[in-house]
Amino acid sequence: MTADRPGGGRWSVGLDIGGTKVLGVLLDGAAAVRATARGATRPGAAGVVAAAAEVVERLCAGAGLAPADLAGVGAGVPGLVDPATGRLSHAVNLGIAEEVEPAPMLAERLGGVPVVVENDLNVAAVGAARELGLSGDLAFLALGTGVAAGLLLGGELRRGARGAAGEIGHIPVDHAGPVCPCGQRGCLELYASGAAIDAAWPNRNGRPTAVDLFAAAENGDPTAVAVRDRFADAVAAAVRLLVLTCDVEHVVLGGGVAEVGEPLVDAVARSVRRQASGSAFLRSLALADRLQVVPREVPVAPIGAALLVRGLLPTGG
Amino acid sequence: MTADRPGGGRWSVGLDIGGTKVLGVLLDGAAAVRATARGATRPGAAGVVAAAAEVVERLCAGAGLAPADLAGVGAGVPGLVDPATGRLSHAVNLGIAEEVEPAPMLAERLGGVPVVVENDLNVAAVGAARELGLSGDLAFLALGTGVAAGLLLGGELRRGARGAAGEIGHIPVDHAGPVCPCGQRGCLELYASGAAIDAAWPNRNGRPTAVDLFAAAENGDPTAVAVRDRFADAVAAAVRLLVLTCDVEHVVLGGGVAEVGEPLVDAVARSVRRQASGSAFLRSLALADRLQVVPREVPVAPIGAALLVRGLLPTGG
Repeated sequence: MTADRPGGGRWSVGLDIGGTKVLGVLLDGAAAVRATARGATRPGAAGVVAAAAEVVERLCAGAGLAPADLAGVGAGVPGLVDPATGRLSHAVNLGIAEEVEPAPMLAERLGGVPVVVENDLNVAAVGAARELGLSGDLAFLALGTGVAAGLLLGGELRRGARGAAGEIGHIPVDHAGPVCPCGQRGCLELYASGAAIDAAWPNRNGRPTAVDLFAAAENGDPTAVAVRDRFADAVAAAVRLLVLTCDVEHVVLGGGVAEVGEPLVDAVARSVRRQASGSAFLRSLALADRLQVVPREVPVAPIGAALLVRGLLPTGG
Repeated sequence: MTADRPGGGRWSVGLDIGGTKVLGVLLDGAAAVRATARGATRPGAAGVVAAAAEVVERLCAGAGLAPADLAGVGAGVPGLVDPATGRLSHAVNLGIAEEVEPAPMLAERLGGVPVVVENDLNVAAVGAARELGLSGDLAFLALGTGVAAGLLLGGELRRGARGAAGEIGHIPVDHAGPVCPCGQRGCLELYASGAAIDAAWPNRNGRPTAVDLFAAAENGDPTAVAVRDRFADAVAAAVRLLVLTCDVEHVVLGGGVAEVGEPLVDAVARSVRRQASGSAFLRSLALADRLQVVPREVPVAPIGAALLVRGLLPTGG
């Protein structure tokens, strides 16, 4: 059996390996999603690799392929991946305390298929550029438990000297603020994250808290309006920060809070405009025009991972 | 007469065109400085071009060259230069209100020699990398009247989608702070600039105010210590900001305040360490180890401009 099939070229699998689940996509040669699958993450290096392999095998079996038929498997992981050595570190969410090299472990488990492992925000940046049809420099701003950005600059992933590029969640924005788990005070993450919304808004409706908050604010609940606008102000500060350092053309809002959809972009755009109201300089940078949100149900991270293993990076503009 | 001379290859001239003076260097083919010259800037496009041309002609005459013998002339200017069109805008310090294309104007005035015009912080970043022998990603952090950075990432100048890359001086760090000329409140520039030192320290000794301040602090003057440390804290925040967005390997302190020399690095390194004292995360990034200062009397901006016109960008690491 061969993997040269409709869509042209060989197929690939992309994975987004999180602390609780592995989300996988099967892409055809034209980078269209042919199937998705998910599995539960098991903590520790061996458990993570086994869970990842099972998702790959499931995707392949469903399409009548063997893993060895794939052009490759790309995986996004929450942690630092050294691009030279492939070593993964700081992967506390995966229950991995030591430094490991997950790519060769997963490749061996899958019979030698090429495997690339990359930071999850970086693969999300690649996937977002592709799925939203964006050329030019891009920041994928993840608003989840924490806040951080994946950066695609000049057509290349920006990883940085020590993998700290895009770690904007730990830039202090209020030195009188509360202590952050990172040890500093008043970090941006304490105001612009999904966790910040969870802490400020008691969700009573069972739906995602950010969705509940934005709906309540839309219905005029004054507390919800205040919490939403304070959150949006903090995200707007993150956007300003990304533009005044890297001047990215696109800021794509992602992470759990992105489930809110367009109302999230609207709220952040309002904050951005309010912050720029007294500043012709800031207005000239048109921050609001740079905002996008990841569409619900588009798995940008695994798609980006599947593109990455095939060497498909969007070109910079 | 030919420009193929000792040092190998053709010579070039680099200019740093500021609001009051034009500083020029003549580089030989091995990128060694053979001569320097300076002249007074005259406001407006025609005046700037004439002043620049005179400095070039003076440097050439002293070396027995004609401008047409040069490999090219590079010029750093305080303003935004569109890399595609060569158009210069926002050059208020040069008394140029309209958009102009200074490169062809200067080239024509000099008999057709190739001319490249670039933002002054960008050429300074190129020159600093060369003069300090730094490979790897670098930010040139200019501490002068304002605060901004030139960024050299992956071996290329980072200009950004609208020329705003590195404009970190206008990131607010205190929303209750005073109004900045840019229209926002509490911008970093209000705390980390030479102008901030001038406002807080009444210089009575005729030497540069920052040098006077640091000397007084060294002598134990409690007011000087307080002003110096507050300034150093703000610069340390700028360094943290650059690393947590771009993760540059080197942050080179430049601009007028850099005349202070190593005591400036020492003070900022102390602030960096104090800010990281409660944060293992921040300590792991070793911010203090990334600091350097431009040595006094090394004209990094014109040197960078002269390298740039010859296509000599340091390679990224």
